[in-house]
Amino acid sequence: MAERQGKPGPPTTVVLFGASGDLAQRKLLPGLLHLWRAGLLPEVRVVGTALEPQTRESFVDLARVAIAKHSDDEEDKQAFEEFATRLFWANSGPEELAATIEEAESTCESTHSRLHYLSVPPKAALSVVRQLEAAGLVEGSRIVMEKPFGTDLESAVALNASIHEVFDEEQIFRIDHFLGKEAALNILAFRFANGIFEPIWHRNNIDHVQIDVPETLGLEGRAGFYEGTGAYRDMVVTHLFQVLAFTAMEPPTSLDPQGITTEKMKVFRSMVPILPSDVVRGQYVGYRDEPGVAPDSETETFIALKCYIDNWRWADVPFYLRTGKRLGAGQRIISIAFKEPPKSMFPPGSGIGDDGPDHLTFDLADASRMSLSFYGKRPGPGFALNKLSMQFAMESTGWTGASLEAYERLILEAVKGNKTLFTTAEGVERLWEISQPMLENPTPVRSYEQGSWGPNQMHQLIAPYAWRLPFQRPWRTQDTPEL
Amino acid sequence: MAERQGKPGPPTTVVLFGASGDLAQRKLLPGLLHLWRAGLLPEVRVVGTALEPQTRESFVDLARVAIAKHSDDEEDKQAFEEFATRLFWANSGPEELAATIEEAESTCESTHSRLHYLSVPPKAALSVVRQLEAAGLVEGSRIVMEKPFGTDLESAVALNASIHEVFDEEQIFRIDHFLGKEAALNILAFRFANGIFEPIWHRNNIDHVQIDVPETLGLEGRAGFYEGTGAYRDMVVTHLFQVLAFTAMEPPTSLDPQGITTEKMKVFRSMVPILPSDVVRGQYVGYRDEPGVAPDSETETFIALKCYIDNWRWADVPFYLRTGKRLGAGQRIISIAFKEPPKSMFPPGSGIGDDGPDHLTFDLADASRMSLSFYGKRPGPGFALNKLSMQFAMESTGWTGASLEAYERLILEAVKGNKTLFTTAEGVERLWEISQPMLENPTPVRSYEQGSWGPNQMHQLIAPYAWRLPFQRPWRTQDTPEL
Repeated sequence: MAERQGKPGPPTTVVLFGASGDLAQRKLLPGLLHLWRAGLLPEVRVVGTALEPQTRESFVDLARVAIAKHSDDEEDKQAFEEFATRLFWANSGPEELAATIEEAESTCESTHSRLHYLSVPPKAALSVVRQLEAAGLVEGSRIVMEKPFGTDLESAVALNASIHEVFDEEQIFRIDHFLGKEAALNILAFRFANGIFEPIWHRNNIDHVQIDVPETLGLEGRAGFYEGTGAYRDMVVTHLFQVLAFTAMEPPTSLDPQGITTEKMKVFRSMVPILPSDVVRGQYVGYRDEPGVAPDSETETFIALKCYIDNWRWADVPFYLRTGKRLGAGQRIISIAFKEPPKSMFPPGSGIGDDGPDHLTFDLADASRMSLSFYGKRPGPGFALNKLSMQFAMESTGWTGASLEAYERLILEAVKGNKTLFTTAEGVERLWEISQPMLENPTPVRSYEQGSWGPNQMHQLIAPYAWRLPFQRPWRTQDTPEL
Repeated sequence: MAERQGKPGPPTTVVLFGASGDLAQRKLLPGLLHLWRAGLLPEVRVVGTALEPQTRESFVDLARVAIAKHSDDEEDKQAFEEFATRLFWANSGPEELAATIEEAESTCESTHSRLHYLSVPPKAALSVVRQLEAAGLVEGSRIVMEKPFGTDLESAVALNASIHEVFDEEQIFRIDHFLGKEAALNILAFRFANGIFEPIWHRNNIDHVQIDVPETLGLEGRAGFYEGTGAYRDMVVTHLFQVLAFTAMEPPTSLDPQGITTEKMKVFRSMVPILPSDVVRGQYVGYRDEPGVAPDSETETFIALKCYIDNWRWADVPFYLRTGKRLGAGQRIISIAFKEPPKSMFPPGSGIGDDGPDHLTFDLADASRMSLSFYGKRPGPGFALNKLSMQFAMESTGWTGASLEAYERLILEAVKGNKTLFTTAEGVERLWEISQPMLENPTPVRSYEQGSWGPNQMHQLIAPYAWRLPFQRPWRTQDTPEL
């Protein structure tokens, strides 16, 4: 993950499938522009393509509008017209694609490396892969794929097998944008750049872990996609398990792709298949009335579950995961709850333990924050204890201007060919494997009110503890974003 | 240290020796008034006495002026006239003292417990003790004594022996006002009310400890006292070693006096006698020109030293202590420096370790603060690490209004008869014992500029590390008090 010294590498052609789509407009085109303008990319050509025909001019217009709307960097916006000379368009079909790539690459001298970015629906991914094969664009290229990577073990195995007929695993970059976040990388820095946290990062000291990603958003017009997906497939089997692996993995031999991938895979292998009885599924009141949703839909818009990593470090330590739509607040936290001291020497009524266990909480928001909550002495006579917290907010450093947005980081790493932050076929398949028991015997969906925190059964799941949110928000008021 | 439930105990007579002196005016009279007004004291009578004759009326006048000047609590000031009816005065001599105490106690019904507070110079302490004996005021009473408790091992042993001829050790409350600070008690809460710090509170994880108490103040008119004392006797053998014991002791069986005293004594016993070669003494330029100071004075106004606690928890972990007059800033910190991770997986140039070790720092200021400094990822591409810190400031809790000033807490504990925060004869003598090598072979005093941080030799003492102050002040700018 170290940056290359000096030049950012050989010229690269980014072939953007689904180039007129939503993700391309919101993230990929603004992200490519930003990376290029900031001098982080090598010389670059972007060849857009999509099912709907378009011209190079109309693609440039679309990109201009997208960037005006979605970029908040004035320097990026001013640099757009120069960037636009690097944009090309190919209508569908292997011949036109190959010709356009050749045209694009002819505008600069040396050999280009090629990155095919598949910003297309899952059903279309395989046909794009076959198109690349037909156009002779496979050899020496890389391919970036977006989730979902299947919908269960069988479909994931089949999808990987089909792609592997064309691309080697080494060429495939499976994006999980949670791993591109500064805050996710800061988990690695926090754990492994410091000597003080590893000794307590262990079942001897840790009571449980919460990974909690409530959302206030609803379907945002994606009912068709969501009906066939649900909260587990959309969030847990992808993002939340990836973050769990960063939190739980052993110190890797190094931060290179092999080091990280090996340790993440060990976590996934040690995870115990999830029991249906450890899962609470919910559906918000009104979901079945949304356009595109079946009136008897059993799709969950909320999920809370308990899972275990059965290894020496984590055996018997529950990991509680929660996410859902239309909940009381939008936040993304990882919270490590520590065990109480083995012996309290404080008098009864001192307050020790009254506000739950000590906890270390990471906020995965774009500007990372952390807090460490502990018991301290309340000023005054006697020895009353209260929960206090030490806090860190990246905003207070003044460094956040240099942040890369998650997609920007992942595009950059894919261009560099660094797979550290990407997931493997083996990892994806293992996560579906541990999901099979709960997918095959889904618990009933419980309804919950919009703006609540989910169905009541989630409290029984985590008892005798409580979900950290919304009760014990560790952030200072002035640092708290609007909910 | 738990507060008593219900009534604060039987009526108490506080006999204040040196009642017209500086400490009485600044701390003791305002403190007694505050404790009484806040309902923390039992029914109380204060009998003032001093060598200089005075009347009850003039003592009340003196107390009124002292409180107007030194109290910042409006409710206290308004309650003074009612408090004044509890003030009595006795001129010197056992008979008048006994008679005045009897008069004071006759104004309320039940039997009084008696607390003799010796706010007098060390030379006068023994004569007060004999006066109390002559007046028949020893039995069933307590005596509070102020430092210094001797000036070396021999004098400390002799002083304790003389006092023990009159008072049992159980009756003697030796004040060390550093132990009355909220922040000192918070060290105990922090360490023992939480499960997460003990595992790292160990030589396996801790590189060294700094206890650093620089002062900007000079002699403040106390040249006569200071010339015969110096920084080591004034600060280190008293306050700094007491704080060291709170930082280093094992978890006690309980927070009661026996539990704490036993563990503190174990620390003192395990301390290695301090080598002269581990001591840097300094004297600020201009000290010898101060009125009352000898022109060839060798008294140190600065001291930095390294000492060791030779037990299983702390063997080979250096404790660096520093204090002095006329230094660059006034602050009181304990800073625990942790070891670097055993293996860095970050690329060369990442910045790991560049800003010194991870450290946990306690500010012993009246409103306690803490910070935990660690390496985190600097936002942006690549994996640059920077020192970050999580911070806590008691001010931000809004609870500081209930704080007790250090002397208030210690008076209150002495009235309650709770010796947890007081020092023992055995402890005092052991601390002089480990001081003998450096007192018998003092290193030369090195001169340093006023407003500096002391003589240069202090840097060699702590190399390859650095004194935390003033370089790595962990507090946020807005929380930093004026220096």
